Amino acid sequence: MILPKSALITDVSPRDGLQSEGASIPTDDKVRLINALAHTGIRRIEVTSFVHPKIVPSMADADEVFRRIERVAGVSYQALVPNVRGADRAIAAGADELNVVLSTTEGFNLRNLNMTVAESIETFRAVAEVARAAGLRAEVGLSVVFGCPYDGPVGLREVLDVTDRLIEAGAEEILFADTIGVANPRQVTETVESIRARWPKLNIGLHFHDTRGLGIANVLSGLEAGVNRFDASVAGIGACPFAPGATGNVCTEDTVHMLESMGVNTGIDLEALIDCARVARELVRHEVPSRLLRAGAWRVP
Amino acid sequence: MILPKSALITDVSPRDGLQSEGASIPTDDKVRLINALAHTGIRRIEVTSFVHPKIVPSMADADEVFRRIERVAGVSYQALVPNVRGADRAIAAGADELNVVLSTTEGFNLRNLNMTVAESIETFRAVAEVARAAGLRAEVGLSVVFGCPYDGPVGLREVLDVTDRLIEAGAEEILFADTIGVANPRQVTETVESIRARWPKLNIGLHFHDTRGLGIANVLSGLEAGVNRFDASVAGIGACPFAPGATGNVCTEDTVHMLESMGVNTGIDLEALIDCARVARELVRHEVPSRLLRAGAWRVP
Repeated sequence: MILPKSALITDVSPRDGLQSEGASIPTDDKVRLINALAHTGIRRIEVTSFVHPKIVPSMADADEVFRRIERVAGVSYQALVPNVRGADRAIAAGADELNVVLSTTEGFNLRNLNMTVAESIETFRAVAEVARAAGLRAEVGLSVVFGCPYDGPVGLREVLDVTDRLIEAGAEEILFADTIGVANPRQVTETVESIRARWPKLNIGLHFHDTRGLGIANVLSGLEAGVNRFDASVAGIGACPFAPGATGNVCTEDTVHMLESMGVNTGIDLEALIDCARVARELVRHEVPSRLLRAGAWRVP
Repeated sequence: MILPKSALITDVSPRDGLQSEGASIPTDDKVRLINALAHTGIRRIEVTSFVHPKIVPSMADADEVFRRIERVAGVSYQALVPNVRGADRAIAAGADELNVVLSTTEGFNLRNLNMTVAESIETFRAVAEVARAAGLRAEVGLSVVFGCPYDGPVGLREVLDVTDRLIEAGAEEILFADTIGVANPRQVTETVESIRARWPKLNIGLHFHDTRGLGIANVLSGLEAGVNRFDASVAGIGACPFAPGATGNVCTEDTVHMLESMGVNTGIDLEALIDCARVARELVRHEVPSRLLRAGAWRVP
């Protein structure tokens, strides 16, 4: 088994994890979670989203969150932005990186973003220019790569087509997302291998949901195909308001535990991460999918 | 990704799954679960255990269970036996196959079975002879292959040593078990490859617990190493009374879903299996780890 020597984990719990929890999480609690995460050794955190508060009320405090968080050296604080207006706000707030989400399918893009895929790609192009002008990078989160709740199965050809257009629009890093948790490990391997064969320099990341229990197996499959960037959410919190049936993101501590146990370095302190998962569970006030939060790491006797 | 074309899944929920639930499950309910499983297309079920009722009270009705279950053609009804006395009872009750459990480590074997590993291997030899005389086969379930709660990490050399001795004692199939849920996918690959290199004709099976969320990833790793026999427990029920911190077996429906979605044929009807998981959840009267029971298989729009 040949695996990458190290992996870059982005914890998306403050944004993707909390977004579906409604507007009930106090800003102070978000700041507490983000600061705790920043002290685990993690190198990238998706902090919040600069989407219009009417669309995502739970992220209405985006500016405030950025104002209050501690800025730990070595941590990149990423913000999701829907358009140039959001990018301007995020840059003014002090985001280190921007993240634009768009979909592989027209059905999901229309329902989720009220735009065609072509319009979203132009939006990304404009955001990427604004980011570059500010000395920052803009990444892409590409939704429903492995299956769409509206358009059904997604072919590799559609994925490659959108990827081509995104790269033409300036994308250097794309996170391929299984938004509704329908990917299987074989599909992950085939998808990654096809993309890499076509675009060897693209930074390929993967974003899985554990809806049907395959999140961690899909991470493994991606790793074996050479991917070393993964989104994950501490405690496994999160869902997608636009993706019926989707449950939590793949759990950060369970993912880090697997990687470290196989000798893939994440730079993350697992015990500190489990403490963050405890904070996240407190915030959402319901059971969370994390296994390590229940079992703990193995204490060798 | 090269995978076996088909896989043999043994559902261990009636024995390994229910054993830790105490003596509270009525025999009729066990029979109902076993009969439901037998109609899913599954080919092997671990029905019960012929251990002394004082040691495992929840399996005191082993003879009665075998008397009452329907015998579906194509299904092998397996019984766990601790010794020749148990083997005689299981054969008289009509078991199709016998299963002997012993440990890789002295520490676990002494605490779990009150014998040395050498004594357990001699017990297996005697059971295998009794089985052969009755025209049956005896398999081995080898515990704590990937780590022991008493003796700590387990080296590949210890695993190969016990395997050698078991094969000398007549073993043709060994299920290598991660009893306490500490295996990682890389370790699974290395273990399987080493065993197969040494014993190409041995039927290698794997038995995982999902304690730290790696159960399904470990199945994937085993599959990629060519293994096509897996134990699993419907609804993910089960634990081990002798393994502190161990949680449920890897979930049958989640495993079958992964295999079938990757084109590995199990012969099992997934919807019928999810119905069995519902029965299992009813029996244990508590939340179960199954993901598919919550999310269902993906209904392509």
